Amino acid sequence: MEERVEISILLDLYGELLTDKQKEIMNLYYNDDFSLSELSEMCNTSRQAIHDIIKRCHKILLDYEAKLKLMEKSNDIGNMKTELLLNLIKAKKSNNIDTLNSIIDKLIDLVEKNL
Amino acid sequence: MEERVEISILLDLYGELLTDKQKEIMNLYYNDDFSLSELSEMCNTSRQAIHDIIKRCHKILLDYEAKLKLMEKSNDIGNMKTELLLNLIKAKKSNNIDTLNSIIDKLIDLVEKNL
Repeated sequence: MEERVEISILLDLYGELLTDKQKEIMNLYYNDDFSLSELSEMCNTSRQAIHDIIKRCHKILLDYEAKLKLMEKSNDIGNMKTELLLNLIKAKKSNNIDTLNSIIDKLIDLVEKNL
Repeated sequence: MEERVEISILLDLYGELLTDKQKEIMNLYYNDDFSLSELSEMCNTSRQAIHDIIKRCHKILLDYEAKLKLMEKSNDIGNMKTELLLNLIKAKKSNNIDTLNSIIDKLIDLVEKNL
């Protein structure tokens, strides 16, 4: 996964665990595409200070992910959703009671084991 | 929800964010039913010190839940699982293609909106 996308997802999952200032800087940098120079001007500090905050927050987010694995779990649920929908649409298209029943058995198994 | 059950669930969700010692004491107290006296003896400290650790950890767990709401989300997914299974079993029992198709429409809607 591209690093910017990954950090944006981690921010969504763990942003509430950062301080308000950290969260704002990370959101402006990763979600609103502000540059280091713009942020340093806005916060009345050096580019280096902003760079350090971003680097530190990135590490904090990765540490939370290493412990709670919410991104990993959210990917699993996303895959499960795709699998469920694909099978439900296949069932709908089949219009045959035996095929429908066999897809439903598969779905019951899928939901019981993975959700 | 009974407090002991709630804390046990919170420990499952956020235990990794406690220190090893905090996690161990909380697990022994809430999951393995050790008493304050047994824990104070085991850790070579006072009952009051153990009581304070447990109280502080409970607050830490509640603070994480207030920010990340993982217990709330996990309840939502649990309810979703029950709803999916109930409908799949109803579909299986109906053995009628129109009923089956209408339940499948309902399930597609449920998965798209809630998962």
